[in-house]
Amino acid sequence: MDHLLAAVDLGSNSFRLSIGRVVQQDNIAHIYAVDRLKESVRLAAGLGPDNRLDNASIERALTILRRYGERLKGFDPDRVRAVATSTFRVARNVDEILPRAEEALGFPIEVISGQEEARLIFSGVANELPPSDNKRLVIDIGGGSTEVIIGKSFEPMQLSSLLMGCVSYTQKYFPDGIVSGERMDKAVLAARREFEGVAKRFRKMGWQEAYGSSGTAKGLFAVLTDSHMSRQGITLDGLEKLRRKLVEDRQVIVEELPGLKESRAAVLPGGLAIMLAAFYELGIETMMQGEGALRVGVLYDLLGRESKHDKRDETVRQFMRRYHIDQGQATRVRACALHLFNAIPVNKEEKEDLQKWLGWAADLHELGMSITAEDYHKHGAYILKHADMPGFSTDEQAIISWFTLGHSGKLRKLKTYRPTWGQWVALLCMRLSALLMRPRENLGRIPLSLMVKGRALTITINAAWLKAHPLTEYSLQNEVNEWEKTGFKIILAAQ
Amino acid sequence: MDHLLAAVDLGSNSFRLSIGRVVQQDNIAHIYAVDRLKESVRLAAGLGPDNRLDNASIERALTILRRYGERLKGFDPDRVRAVATSTFRVARNVDEILPRAEEALGFPIEVISGQEEARLIFSGVANELPPSDNKRLVIDIGGGSTEVIIGKSFEPMQLSSLLMGCVSYTQKYFPDGIVSGERMDKAVLAARREFEGVAKRFRKMGWQEAYGSSGTAKGLFAVLTDSHMSRQGITLDGLEKLRRKLVEDRQVIVEELPGLKESRAAVLPGGLAIMLAAFYELGIETMMQGEGALRVGVLYDLLGRESKHDKRDETVRQFMRRYHIDQGQATRVRACALHLFNAIPVNKEEKEDLQKWLGWAADLHELGMSITAEDYHKHGAYILKHADMPGFSTDEQAIISWFTLGHSGKLRKLKTYRPTWGQWVALLCMRLSALLMRPRENLGRIPLSLMVKGRALTITINAAWLKAHPLTEYSLQNEVNEWEKTGFKIILAAQ
Repeated sequence: MDHLLAAVDLGSNSFRLSIGRVVQQDNIAHIYAVDRLKESVRLAAGLGPDNRLDNASIERALTILRRYGERLKGFDPDRVRAVATSTFRVARNVDEILPRAEEALGFPIEVISGQEEARLIFSGVANELPPSDNKRLVIDIGGGSTEVIIGKSFEPMQLSSLLMGCVSYTQKYFPDGIVSGERMDKAVLAARREFEGVAKRFRKMGWQEAYGSSGTAKGLFAVLTDSHMSRQGITLDGLEKLRRKLVEDRQVIVEELPGLKESRAAVLPGGLAIMLAAFYELGIETMMQGEGALRVGVLYDLLGRESKHDKRDETVRQFMRRYHIDQGQATRVRACALHLFNAIPVNKEEKEDLQKWLGWAADLHELGMSITAEDYHKHGAYILKHADMPGFSTDEQAIISWFTLGHSGKLRKLKTYRPTWGQWVALLCMRLSALLMRPRENLGRIPLSLMVKGRALTITINAAWLKAHPLTEYSLQNEVNEWEKTGFKIILAAQ
Repeated sequence: MDHLLAAVDLGSNSFRLSIGRVVQQDNIAHIYAVDRLKESVRLAAGLGPDNRLDNASIERALTILRRYGERLKGFDPDRVRAVATSTFRVARNVDEILPRAEEALGFPIEVISGQEEARLIFSGVANELPPSDNKRLVIDIGGGSTEVIIGKSFEPMQLSSLLMGCVSYTQKYFPDGIVSGERMDKAVLAARREFEGVAKRFRKMGWQEAYGSSGTAKGLFAVLTDSHMSRQGITLDGLEKLRRKLVEDRQVIVEELPGLKESRAAVLPGGLAIMLAAFYELGIETMMQGEGALRVGVLYDLLGRESKHDKRDETVRQFMRRYHIDQGQATRVRACALHLFNAIPVNKEEKEDLQKWLGWAADLHELGMSITAEDYHKHGAYILKHADMPGFSTDEQAIISWFTLGHSGKLRKLKTYRPTWGQWVALLCMRLSALLMRPRENLGRIPLSLMVKGRALTITINAAWLKAHPLTEYSLQNEVNEWEKTGFKIILAAQ
């Protein structure tokens, strides 16, 4: 059987499913599209003034996801990655929607940050273009956010994600579909204002080729060339012609614009305004069309994880350097925590994830010391929750942040996260390990083990060793008390 | 008239007032003590289980501060620095107490972090010892916290502040004054546990001389030598003899312990337990007595500020490097913000402070970008609030954090800080500057000015320039609306 990977992109304007086949060529793995589905869902338009997603949009989304779920039936969960972007980032009722969406799809869905989205978009575009040493600018105007990236080969060098998209801008500046010169001016100004803060560093870095990778770029490309407003690619001159045409017609008339698809027409004014702003602020001359984008980036990321080039490992290594983490201590705590955890019976699927997260959390648990020693676990948790961590979803960052917050101190603060039983047990391993390793020296054989029977936990510890280490005994006793306060029963057995 | 400086140390066990005279010798300024007052206040004992300071302790504190206030009458505020330590750091009703304490003293009081306390203690001890190239360990067991420092010459190399002190430990482990072997074991274990997490790095760094700088060290030194329990300095052997003696007597009997002062007796058991723990965990052999400590460190810091060696400038420069801040942009925003602010009539005293804070905040306002571009103003504010910033009080960090949080985005979030009118106006200057400098390029002459008449603000801007900069016009209009929402009236006048 072919080696298949699948990516689901829950965008703010459309949802996409891509299934790719992995083919080895000259020792390099390539992904060829096997199946592609795209549905216009215009999710961003369902965000009310209170930033809650309305029921009609949720139902539209669930219907599509159920269809995708059928297509993906039988796929190994390791070979499917579903990512959700800006609308999910801002929707205040995301916690209610996600479980329903995951149930409909049959696979977990990760909400990713704008920076992570930008990274994946660049990877997707770069993987579909011929190899080149040129610096490439990629602009992806989505339904709710716009990503701007400059990179070379497969490496992004500058990333930016701005909170504006063709759906949200059309809704805000052209709510009834009427296009006027004044409205267009307002929309372009607002978009220029967003680009203004980042334009300088992109212009300074420069590029040799510019690509537009979203439906907006594709639509503009088709309209401008088919309507003879520009000869090749998207140009400022062509965009201004289109703008004059829309203002003249006072709306988007599909019949007047050869090349324009019906589904694109409804969000064209907002998309055009943002693209115009990008051309003004960045000084773009000609933009070509880039294929692939997010969904292809997700597929290549999945491929990397399979072939042991997990972007997340690289990010953790980078963070350890950047925040001057004591590598020796991280290694000690990681080894001991995983040693304790590996002996615990947890269902296989959850266990593999927990092992990864526990390991990364152990690597990073002292990160907050770069701010200050006092309450460093809180500072580390804050940074891990908010930082750009290439390869990680916001959910993964949340759990690693949770392990970091919980590796010492009181347990009460951890309940709001609503951890699973497996996560609590993994946390106990982390805490016991941090406690044992407090002297920051190699311990030789680990003198304790952890046993689980139903919901009862037993820590067995070598009696002679314990007698020789009164400090650890004292700490273990405190640890047991702390878990009891949180409603757990832990037995400390010296043997 | 002599050049006098004054330091007030609001410690958890005692309050101190030191007045020093600055004398230039061989081009180096030295401070000679002119006046020293010390009062035992045992503030930490007034912390209830809810961490609120009780009324009796507050009254004790206010009485002493009024007395100090009398002595300090006529001092220039620039030459007085009052710092408060651990009890003020943890007391939950500190916001009610501080204004009363400041009124009693007649000068502002700064609550400083444990790290800052440790830095000042080392500076104080180092300045009172003969010059040496030896690494020196300093341990300062206070009423509510214990600072551990290794440094060379005047520079601290390792700093740590632990939340335990002679008052809090005596109260916790010897509440009725009865000393037993078991109680002492418990107290020593708990203290060892606190040292354990930091001991390794101190031991690894090593030292040639060890000093104890607090009342506890002074008291132990006097008892051990006068009672012939050790011959020179504090030794482990001597400490253990004292411990046996206290356990035998089942309490501290002043008459049995030559050298012991009445006021020290009440907190000796807790202080002894912490000192024993320090000797065990750090492996100290002999400890000498160090003079000066916090109050002297504060005096030398004041001296540095006068002679343009402000520690705070150095810290800001360090942070700009550590967090990879765009220096060009910081310089532009700083210059413009101060240019606007300098023209505003604010009373002289507040103005000088605000100019300093505004400048530092401009230097650091983009610090959060090191975490991520999204909401970077919030991340920067978080770090500036929590980080170790040598030379800064927690109040100063709070205001710089506030400027950083408020330099862009909504204003509503800023009200909880309860800023003064002057602070609001300074913030407006910061925001206008950040707004003008968004293109990240030098602007030449600043095209706008700010005028204040009572509570009405007028922004005057060059009309021709504004016409040529529609983006800035758009942003300024938004800015005016944002301030109006917050209850301010700002007039935008193009001329």
